[in-house]
Amino acid sequence: MADQAVADFGLIGLAVMGQNLILNVADHGFTVCAFNRTVSKVDHFLANEAKGKSIIGAHSIQEFCAKLKRPRRIMLLVMAGKPVDDFIEALLPFLEKGDIIIDGGNSHFPDSNRRTQYLNGKGISFVGSGVSGGEEGARYGPSLMPGGNEAAWPHIKDIFQSIAAKSDGEACCDWVGDEGSGHYVKMVHNGIEYGDMQLICEAYDILKRGVGLSSKEIGDVFAKWNSGVLDSFLVEITRDILYYNDNDGTPLVDKILDKAGQKGTGKWTAINALDLGMPVTLIGEAVFSRCLSALKDERGRASTILSGPTPKFEGDKQAFIDDLEQALYASKIISYAQGFMLIQNAAKEYKWKLNKPSIALMWRGGCIIRSVFLKDITKAYRSNPDLENLLFDDFFNKAINNAQTGWRHVISKTALWGIPAPAFSTALAFYDGYRSKNLPANLLQAQRDYFGAHTFRIKPEDASETFPEGKDIHVNWTGRGGDVSASTYIA
Amino acid sequence: MADQAVADFGLIGLAVMGQNLILNVADHGFTVCAFNRTVSKVDHFLANEAKGKSIIGAHSIQEFCAKLKRPRRIMLLVMAGKPVDDFIEALLPFLEKGDIIIDGGNSHFPDSNRRTQYLNGKGISFVGSGVSGGEEGARYGPSLMPGGNEAAWPHIKDIFQSIAAKSDGEACCDWVGDEGSGHYVKMVHNGIEYGDMQLICEAYDILKRGVGLSSKEIGDVFAKWNSGVLDSFLVEITRDILYYNDNDGTPLVDKILDKAGQKGTGKWTAINALDLGMPVTLIGEAVFSRCLSALKDERGRASTILSGPTPKFEGDKQAFIDDLEQALYASKIISYAQGFMLIQNAAKEYKWKLNKPSIALMWRGGCIIRSVFLKDITKAYRSNPDLENLLFDDFFNKAINNAQTGWRHVISKTALWGIPAPAFSTALAFYDGYRSKNLPANLLQAQRDYFGAHTFRIKPEDASETFPEGKDIHVNWTGRGGDVSASTYIA
Repeated sequence: MADQAVADFGLIGLAVMGQNLILNVADHGFTVCAFNRTVSKVDHFLANEAKGKSIIGAHSIQEFCAKLKRPRRIMLLVMAGKPVDDFIEALLPFLEKGDIIIDGGNSHFPDSNRRTQYLNGKGISFVGSGVSGGEEGARYGPSLMPGGNEAAWPHIKDIFQSIAAKSDGEACCDWVGDEGSGHYVKMVHNGIEYGDMQLICEAYDILKRGVGLSSKEIGDVFAKWNSGVLDSFLVEITRDILYYNDNDGTPLVDKILDKAGQKGTGKWTAINALDLGMPVTLIGEAVFSRCLSALKDERGRASTILSGPTPKFEGDKQAFIDDLEQALYASKIISYAQGFMLIQNAAKEYKWKLNKPSIALMWRGGCIIRSVFLKDITKAYRSNPDLENLLFDDFFNKAINNAQTGWRHVISKTALWGIPAPAFSTALAFYDGYRSKNLPANLLQAQRDYFGAHTFRIKPEDASETFPEGKDIHVNWTGRGGDVSASTYIA
Repeated sequence: MADQAVADFGLIGLAVMGQNLILNVADHGFTVCAFNRTVSKVDHFLANEAKGKSIIGAHSIQEFCAKLKRPRRIMLLVMAGKPVDDFIEALLPFLEKGDIIIDGGNSHFPDSNRRTQYLNGKGISFVGSGVSGGEEGARYGPSLMPGGNEAAWPHIKDIFQSIAAKSDGEACCDWVGDEGSGHYVKMVHNGIEYGDMQLICEAYDILKRGVGLSSKEIGDVFAKWNSGVLDSFLVEITRDILYYNDNDGTPLVDKILDKAGQKGTGKWTAINALDLGMPVTLIGEAVFSRCLSALKDERGRASTILSGPTPKFEGDKQAFIDDLEQALYASKIISYAQGFMLIQNAAKEYKWKLNKPSIALMWRGGCIIRSVFLKDITKAYRSNPDLENLLFDDFFNKAINNAQTGWRHVISKTALWGIPAPAFSTALAFYDGYRSKNLPANLLQAQRDYFGAHTFRIKPEDASETFPEGKDIHVNWTGRGGDVSASTYIA
């Protein structure tokens, strides 16, 4: 039986991501064993894409486990949810202490918390790993974000760092942290991806409806942007998409239905931000924008009923396009600053030790949000791992300061033109709110105390004998009403 | 024993809301029995506030139940969560079939769904009722939003509609619908309340930092607004608050710490909107604004590091203040339109029959968001209960159209001044997005197909033989990559 154990790595789930990841692992000199619930897919894969490579197959879970060297390193790339639990249960009878199960799907991090604990109790190391980069990434170098039972890391590090994307020679893969932190970081990555995509869409819409450019001309703008501060995978593919013509020679993008799906990791990120009380407004607006896009028929009717201005461009087009580039750059800085605020807070809340420079590095290459920009973020956190906020880093502080005149100009224009720019706008509102020592929440606290006796506090600099610092104060604003405060609202 | 049963209504929980609600019920000719976990509170209440009124007390659950006429009508005003379940269990041994338990706390609607079903199985009618209006409302006429087991309604209707606020002679209380729908509608009410408060705060901040008015002068502005389209409880109390001076003769509001709490029904509303895929952006921004306000110390540091423009007002102050009134009005219309979109979608999703004109009427008086405005909403839904969107009603369509020039002007100014206006801005972005037949989500769908083979569809007007309508299409954008689409991403 021992001779059978020839594979360094096992992978279950032969959809596009799974197939490509197997080919990637095999390319790096490892022997991989493939398995799929519908076993005919295994044979098809072995006879085609996997032919001539160090890839073997199995037709049952038992056979699959028998063919793996110990500790077994088994990666699941199946649909998130019940299929993951089902495969874990199916695997357990054939595993031994110290074996490793890696979930590479888009699982929700609380599930990975649970699975880490459950499998730890059985002597099996669970790893929840974010995998990003789509088809291409999986095949030629994804970004990998593994977290969970740290005992697994020495056994998978070599394979993971070999197959991962490289950025300036460094692998875009490192140990993230405890429990579901790998999937958590992947979730935030996806939320940021939602944000980046929304920002690009708003820029495209402004160039189209505001400046009046054709898709080809907008492609030229993105091509140029891709050689500057916005140099990134998403800007690059936007250029390609805008250049891509249908058979009739007109841009295909113009014909695509503007109805986007959501429900997934972007939504999870926004909900988690609300749960942790972190103002991750840009991802929130990006998710809501997808929801609004989905109301296509209703928007069609609204467009015939509700009126607005007709955009009319006046002035220097190139100067405006340069302002727009700055608006996109500044908004992107805000989005990443918010994402890192969320991660920082999650580490505190869930008691995970997380390595911020490593997270930026893992996103630097391989994944959908890969960009030159993330190199600067990596640099910022490497030079100061305790950086309180990305905006406090000199480089980004200077960058956003240089950008803000153009950014403000673009937003003031879109408001007057009637072109929606929810992500650009919320980014600016966040920047102006975040740098406000005093926000109008003093009035809000007074309102809450007025109608609900919710109490308020006094600014330290205005404390007095009547109203001392750090005390919950209730004022009888009207002269009517009782003196019972709402904090006693419990039977 | 039968002689003991003298009370028409029983209430458990003697915090401020409970006490005031009991006094209100007693004022309307009903005999009320009061109970509280800490029974000394019962005696204190009977000897003071309740003295000389048709209010009796009980020192045990058993005594409490014995003193109630049948069917027993028992209202809980205790902390949401476990205390509600605990009291239900404590009551059950002393109840009979047909008795009614009403939860008047801020319970989350899924809990009320569960309790309705659980108690229905025991022959007890459960009602989850939203109660709004704070101390004053509870005492002199709250807004009541009861839902749950409809069998209860004939038995509580008289009491509920007697004690509720009145609007033009009509009670601000009607049966909402099945299961947790009463608490659901209350949740959305609170979300809208978050939005209204945020909008007022932004207007206050713009008047203060942008126009340079004093608190007294801003009070004058709100006083004037309160006699126009913005006439509402929240604008009225804002005026009072701005006029309220500390002992030293300076406005107290200026000294209140600008750090607001969240975590509650506003957050639930935003999360529910994300779950249902409805773009309720204004409430989302309002919740996030509270989160940002809570980062007071970090903002203090940010204010010394991050720079921005110095607002400088030029032009006609009164004209700008009039624009601001329109901006607030238009943003408020958007917020309510979004709230009703959410409710409409929830009715579909949860299979509840909900009465939109009644909901608007229930919010018309008694509650925190009461306003003249809600009279117009009631009118809109009464004249057309199937109205697809509040914005499609002639009155509101005209109102927002009249408002938009001022609204756009204010937002373009705040962007240039560096004063955060996240709720105003997101409302405008929603308006412009909602009335856009075509949004840039076509590009987004192309991106998703490019990197993840997620497929897209073609606009009906651009369908062809190659790209037919209603079909999920994947294009090989790069000439590289496979032909496996991501929809097969399951093992």
